[in-house]
Amino acid sequence: MTPEVDRKAFRDLSYGLYLVTSFNGDRLNGQVVNTVIQVTSEPPRVAVIINKKNLTHEFIVKSKVFGVSVLEESAPMTFFGPFGFKSGRDLDKLAKVSFKKGSTGCPLITDHSLSVLEAEVIDRIDLGSHTIFVADVISSEVLKNGRPMTYQYYHEHLKGKSPKNAPTFEPPAGKGRETS
Amino acid sequence: MTPEVDRKAFRDLSYGLYLVTSFNGDRLNGQVVNTVIQVTSEPPRVAVIINKKNLTHEFIVKSKVFGVSVLEESAPMTFFGPFGFKSGRDLDKLAKVSFKKGSTGCPLITDHSLSVLEAEVIDRIDLGSHTIFVADVISSEVLKNGRPMTYQYYHEHLKGKSPKNAPTFEPPAGKGRETS
Repeated sequence: MTPEVDRKAFRDLSYGLYLVTSFNGDRLNGQVVNTVIQVTSEPPRVAVIINKKNLTHEFIVKSKVFGVSVLEESAPMTFFGPFGFKSGRDLDKLAKVSFKKGSTGCPLITDHSLSVLEAEVIDRIDLGSHTIFVADVISSEVLKNGRPMTYQYYHEHLKGKSPKNAPTFEPPAGKGRETS
Repeated sequence: MTPEVDRKAFRDLSYGLYLVTSFNGDRLNGQVVNTVIQVTSEPPRVAVIINKKNLTHEFIVKSKVFGVSVLEESAPMTFFGPFGFKSGRDLDKLAKVSFKKGSTGCPLITDHSLSVLEAEVIDRIDLGSHTIFVADVISSEVLKNGRPMTYQYYHEHLKGKSPKNAPTFEPPAGKGRETS
């Protein structure tokens, strides 16, 4: 029997929801991701998955730096929605939000954020549509206490969807697994 | 001012809780991880982070295959605790649990699991203490409906800790960031 891939199984994987930021000279950008994870404890390192089509990807490749803001559960869609469904090529996404600059110059968004961290890329894997960036955490800070937004909460309470550039995007029903 | 790393910020990152399995000939093994994520949609790929000291790491390197079981929220510590705090070098962890064999021969644990998937490693990054394995999902299946166990639930309700081989292990207070 040929093994089958039921994408519904992927819905049981758990994630948080984050804003990932980067910069290119004076230009700043950020996007929503669900894929920030800590990958080692000593030294403290994190990984993030970014779609190659996204402007944030271009900026991380150039600056080798990214920032992460952990969204709080109460963050409204009106705040973070534009970071997921609009491109920084069309508008300045950071024009109307509060942020501070990290030690590298990377913007760290502080609105609706529990914690921020700044990381320097040390390695990456090309995944075809996406890249995994692995990075040393060079600074991190707790801004306030609260519950982090989870991907489950986003789906259940905010009726959120996965944009087409997300690793968790679900192709229309009937479309099978493509071989790469 | 020198940038500082406050590890408390890492506690705001969200994860699920999973059993990751692999095999070496007739020998089977598995361990708890919090770091399974989907990394691309087309083709469906996942990544997992495993400590190099763990037997499961040795088995994945050899077989190039691993299984993932998504733990349900109601899974008791008595069931999955041994997968996190005991080594397969000392006991057969799968002796007393239900599992089935995937198409590659990899065991897929079905007790207290919402979904299972089987994946073939296509790339990896050496992180020092840990390895990121990137893998094509070759089969996946929903076993039952329910809420997945999250790392947050594990900490809040089961008073769970991170074992010393976990990426999220917190070194004793006062120990700073080591350079690699």
